[in-house]
Amino acid sequence: MATLGLIEYQDASPEVRAVYDDIMATRKTDWINNFWKAIARDPATLRRTWQSVKEIMAPGALDPLTKEMIYVAVSATNQCPYCIASHTAAARKAGMTDSMFAELMAVVGMANETNRLSSGYQVQIDEHFKAES
Amino acid sequence: MATLGLIEYQDASPEVRAVYDDIMATRKTDWINNFWKAIARDPATLRRTWQSVKEIMAPGALDPLTKEMIYVAVSATNQCPYCIASHTAAARKAGMTDSMFAELMAVVGMANETNRLSSGYQVQIDEHFKAES
Amino acid sequence: MATLGLIEYQDASPEVRAVYDDIMATRKTDWINNFWKAIARDPATLRRTWQSVKEIMAPGALDPLTKEMIYVAVSATNQCPYCIASHTAAARKAGMTDSMFAELMAVVGMANETNRLSSGYQVQIDEHFKAES
Amino acid sequence: MATLGLIEYQDASPEVRAVYDDIMATRKTDWINNFWKAIARDPATLRRTWQSVKEIMAPGALDPLTKEMIYVAVSATNQCPYCIASHTAAARKAGMTDSMFAELMAVVGMANETNRLSSGYQVQIDEHFKAES
Amino acid sequence: MATLGLIEYQDASPEVRAVYDDIMATRKTDWINNFWKAIARDPATLRRTWQSVKEIMAPGALDPLTKEMIYVAVSATNQCPYCIASHTAAARKAGMTDSMFAELMAVVGMANETNRLSSGYQVQIDEHFKAES
Amino acid sequence: MATLGLIEYQDASPEVRAVYDDIMATRKTDWINNFWKAIARDPATLRRTWQSVKEIMAPGALDPLTKEMIYVAVSATNQCPYCIASHTAAARKAGMTDSMFAELMAVVGMANETNRLSSGYQVQIDEHFKAES
Repeated sequence: MATLGLIEYQDASPEVRAVYDDIMATRKTDWINNFWKAIARDPATLRRTWQSVKEIMAPGALDPLTKEMIYVAVSATNQCPYCIASHTAAARKAGMTDSMFAELMAVVGMANETNRLSSGYQVQIDEHFKAES
Repeated sequence: MATLGLIEYQDASPEVRAVYDDIMATRKTDWINNFWKAIARDPATLRRTWQSVKEIMAPGALDPLTKEMIYVAVSATNQCPYCIASHTAAARKAGMTDSMFAELMAVVGMANETNRLSSGYQVQIDEHFKAES
Repeated sequence: MATLGLIEYQDASPEVRAVYDDIMATRKTDWINNFWKAIARDPATLRRTWQSVKEIMAPGALDPLTKEMIYVAVSATNQCPYCIASHTAAARKAGMTDSMFAELMAVVGMANETNRLSSGYQVQIDEHFKAES
Repeated sequence: MATLGLIEYQDASPEVRAVYDDIMATRKTDWINNFWKAIARDPATLRRTWQSVKEIMAPGALDPLTKEMIYVAVSATNQCPYCIASHTAAARKAGMTDSMFAELMAVVGMANETNRLSSGYQVQIDEHFKAES
Repeated sequence: MATLGLIEYQDASPEVRAVYDDIMATRKTDWINNFWKAIARDPATLRRTWQSVKEIMAPGALDPLTKEMIYVAVSATNQCPYCIASHTAAARKAGMTDSMFAELMAVVGMANETNRLSSGYQVQIDEHFKAES
Repeated sequence: MATLGLIEYQDASPEVRAVYDDIMATRKTDWINNFWKAIARDPATLRRTWQSVKEIMAPGALDPLTKEMIYVAVSATNQCPYCIASHTAAARKAGMTDSMFAELMAVVGMANETNRLSSGYQVQIDEHFKAES
């Protein structure tokens, strides 16, 4: 089910359990998805990844729904089946409707198309768009 | 400056000019960026691409700013310098602040990281996340 | 100009020169492009890469022009500026017209779009399409 | 089977049915593959995507078989299992033999290899290859 | 099981069998994995790919374990399930421990993250880092 | 020079300066490269990214040179020019010779090639390679 196997809650060390508890409390859920159980074999990666995700996905200048949709956009672009499935579920839980999902996909598809037209036609960056120092 | 060169407004056919005019009117701007001038050598692609972009990026279930930020997310993931420059400019014009940009980048970076942890650890999709028929 | 520098013909070892000579003879040209000069610091890679390219790009069930256009399609998808520039030039030399290039780009763009719609919508493979054993 | 489910012909609205009918007529087939049924939940995306695909994949400066092989090249580069399966089937229907497929794959593999050698060795674009304006 | 099917040892031509024998002898194993059986339909690709892999993966300035871990890093970045599975197995056989795998994944994840922060923030290359000619 | 500009040491807040100081102390160098100056506009991202990089790239089950070479492998695969330049420099500083670089590139190129042969030929994962639960 995963390269190093999955660590279930009942088999977890106190260190891993503390992360699992924080994930469930933060997400207001009572289960842990496979991603975390798979990386839990490396507690340092589990802790660091969760701390980063928790910090980055918290409400800020962007709301959590927008952040989850951006996560789906990246995952679809990268062809990551696990990430598409898990973050589409998370985005829906955060309020994404079917119409929002459909528009998200339309933008992702279009961006992937024009990204290649830009590179393929060797278009140079307009002076207007150059990043300033 | 581009594989087939750029077509400037004054050199454009009426068909190409009509698209340029619609781009400027829709975007409330008085210039055309290189992307459109580069694909204008193929009027069918110019027309089709513009019609699709116009339709997809219009306000709907998602607002134009969210759509532009999704465009930037895809472009950064794909390493497309032209698209990052042009859509970052467009997102700013639509209201993206520096803080919103910074959070957008943080999510894009994190998603690209966990996309590879998921695939690399060979994590299988949880039953909860499976798409229903 | 390149991580390990470029090896010019006059500075090349007999082993490297032999590859350069074969490249120029095969391509009916009198110069060597930077790609080969850059990898020439590792003669084993130079030799192996050229032998593979020479064998793969030779006329066979597919003609050289089709092969060069496929090379451009991959390079545009991967956002490789050097490869887009060099293989677009090679495709033109092999007979690619502006119209052919424009259609090639249209297909590349469309494929990149529908690749993400397929993954993003989590579409499962139809029984009709499953590869047989 | 897909994020928003699949829409079968008998359950489709007249708008969706019209697109399905055009797909079957254009492709001279009597069934609709899952891709279209999955995006049909968003009739605007269904219509726009089909119109674009129909226009782009029609015979022009490039023949339909070449276009399908380019589609496979992009899909294999992007690691899109659905797209590889469906467009390999389409290419075969358009006349791709086993030998043509094998050469297509050889070029796709080689291009993906040299794309990384070019970027990894930081090779700069030769003056000869620079796109003119 | 594969686009052109798999060629088993007992059904293989002498040319294909010779490659299979060399694979098993070089890898000190008594079976052939599906990758080789799938490309064996094109004996030229089978031979060329095996010769390249054999040459590249042999001990040199880098040891075989390091090479296999680099292979896993690329495969995880590209989201190639087959390659992740087969090269993770190969890396373990070459001595990769669970701790080494976990650190490998941490680096791969981090690199994928900072690759997008670099491109997304449009960071220009420092003079110190420029490749010399 | 970067989307939000670069923050130089003399203009940095104490929070940013503390990170810069730690980067220079950890890397035994007296300058800060553009990547950090560009993300410093978002001190949370600067701090989190540096803490993760510092933790991940420290000696462990894998030595720092191997980690830097893996970073280069990912960056070349993703076509990230900044990352290729900066991590090639870092790998050299950590002891990578020209021969090691050349072998690294050969593996990266080969992996990118066989990743596409695997996906393109639709090769299924051998039972031997399946990740256990």
